[in-house]
Amino acid sequence: MAKKRVLSGMRPTGRLHLGNLHGALANWIKIQDQYDCFFFIADWHALTSDYEETGAIQDYVRDMMVDWLSAGLSPEKSTLFVQSKIKEHAELFLILAMITPVPWLERNPTYKDQIVQLSNKDLSTFGFLGYPVLQAADIIMYKADSVPVGVDQVPHIEITREIARRFNYLYKKKVFPEPEPILTESSKILGLDRRKMSKSYNNAIYLAESPKEISSKASRMITDPQRMKKTDPGDPDVCNVFEFHKLYSDIEMVTEINEQCRIAKIGCVECKKKMSENLVKALEPIREKRDYYESQPEMVEDIIRTGTTKADKVAKQTMEEVRAVMKI
Amino acid sequence: MAKKRVLSGMRPTGRLHLGNLHGALANWIKIQDQYDCFFFIADWHALTSDYEETGAIQDYVRDMMVDWLSAGLSPEKSTLFVQSKIKEHAELFLILAMITPVPWLERNPTYKDQIVQLSNKDLSTFGFLGYPVLQAADIIMYKADSVPVGVDQVPHIEITREIARRFNYLYKKKVFPEPEPILTESSKILGLDRRKMSKSYNNAIYLAESPKEISSKASRMITDPQRMKKTDPGDPDVCNVFEFHKLYSDIEMVTEINEQCRIAKIGCVECKKKMSENLVKALEPIREKRDYYESQPEMVEDIIRTGTTKADKVAKQTMEEVRAVMKI
Repeated sequence: MAKKRVLSGMRPTGRLHLGNLHGALANWIKIQDQYDCFFFIADWHALTSDYEETGAIQDYVRDMMVDWLSAGLSPEKSTLFVQSKIKEHAELFLILAMITPVPWLERNPTYKDQIVQLSNKDLSTFGFLGYPVLQAADIIMYKADSVPVGVDQVPHIEITREIARRFNYLYKKKVFPEPEPILTESSKILGLDRRKMSKSYNNAIYLAESPKEISSKASRMITDPQRMKKTDPGDPDVCNVFEFHKLYSDIEMVTEINEQCRIAKIGCVECKKKMSENLVKALEPIREKRDYYESQPEMVEDIIRTGTTKADKVAKQTMEEVRAVMKI
Repeated sequence: MAKKRVLSGMRPTGRLHLGNLHGALANWIKIQDQYDCFFFIADWHALTSDYEETGAIQDYVRDMMVDWLSAGLSPEKSTLFVQSKIKEHAELFLILAMITPVPWLERNPTYKDQIVQLSNKDLSTFGFLGYPVLQAADIIMYKADSVPVGVDQVPHIEITREIARRFNYLYKKKVFPEPEPILTESSKILGLDRRKMSKSYNNAIYLAESPKEISSKASRMITDPQRMKKTDPGDPDVCNVFEFHKLYSDIEMVTEINEQCRIAKIGCVECKKKMSENLVKALEPIREKRDYYESQPEMVEDIIRTGTTKADKVAKQTMEEVRAVMKI
């Protein structure tokens, strides 16, 4: 039996950090063997919020592909491509726009939420309102069976399903499957300041970070705020550094620190140092692969080109089918 | 000096009638020598209101091109093309969507007006709301200096100008000229029942109509409603047949009928017969050319292909410029 197809994308908004890795990318890497995966860099989506500052998008696209490859996405297993290189996404967006009722978009819970959250940007644009339509086009173009998403993205997948259903109904043929969300259990990883790790909060550790940068950032991490002095006992359960240990240190070290912190036998400085050594070690293979791909820009271009050609073929096939059932 | 560029389009919603000819097409034919004209069949626009009934669109596209050629649009003078064949229209639509504020579209006077007028159709779609964005993409793609429009379309051109201005402002280069509307003084021609001539009112005389059909339709035209019997004097000023005489009969006949009707010296039957003879004569060359093109479907296809290739080249150039200034 053919593998089920999975599609997901990321907006190129800068270098990837540990939050991205644990939030989505690690899961993508894991499912590559299990599914026929299409992963794309959503550069047109980047325009929805960053239309006023587009200058860096192309660099971000390249950076993102290098991060992906370094973290373990494989161009041999998965189809890795760039959205804007495939004009069919715009064409299908236009066609789906015609059949999507405005109220479906207005009642999208993330819509008004984001307008409030990103109040420093003017998001009252037609394109931002139509974000879920473009997302639907991206997904159903490849007839994806499933889409790995975080829980906040589930309403978007629901709109995609409704749009696919409406298309099939209007044109009397089941052209598009209704994709199922796969809820990814992502390890929660917080930023240096214990807020959500985010580029815009300036609290992130990036995949491309050097060992020196990692240890410097680790040393600035907020620990148990109740522990003022080294002689105070600490509480690992509220300590972000301990969360990192759970991800990057072996079970012995985690157990040891859990005990020693509570009796003030280990101080935060030493604890952070141990953690950052392990984090450096864990990121080492990614960093090495990164150096390799950075030195081979043509190979990266070639990987983008090959993946995009593969995706383009599928997209062209789908659009032929779309035009056939619509008789346009 | 290079000719100024003009762009206009028509939605393929069926065979053209005299209302279309006198409303727009006659003017297009007239300005072909004066301007560098791009005329396109707006088949994607047809989806905004006819997304539920798309089956006939392709036939309508062919029919429309045959009507255009028969009426006198010349593929040697003007660039005649089909919108959906040029994917760049969808791409530019997507990009302009990102920079167009929703309120610009909501306050578009024709938007709510049409939703009310076409209440038998569900027009609350995202695509219908974005109609002016697609129209803006169509126009500025070819850097048109002017757009011939009826007075009701002026607000759409104003939105196009605003979008062009906003693009130039955001990306700090005057990529797009702001197109000027050319108000076409169209001869008002009413339908058989004195309402606006329209396919949906079933009151139209089509360019492709046979002499027999024309005379049959002419005989059903509403004249001066006060004139009950042939012996009653009539009033040409309120007679639709007289309006047709003014367009299709020579000045002597118009003068004669104007006099004889008022003194009941000519009856409506005879008057209609004279008019329809002249109308048949006037449409004769169009009908002949129509027969010719109908018998040469490959030539029509070729004309569409050639025009589309020419337009595509311009569109690709523009999109390169767009991507360059946006750095995407």
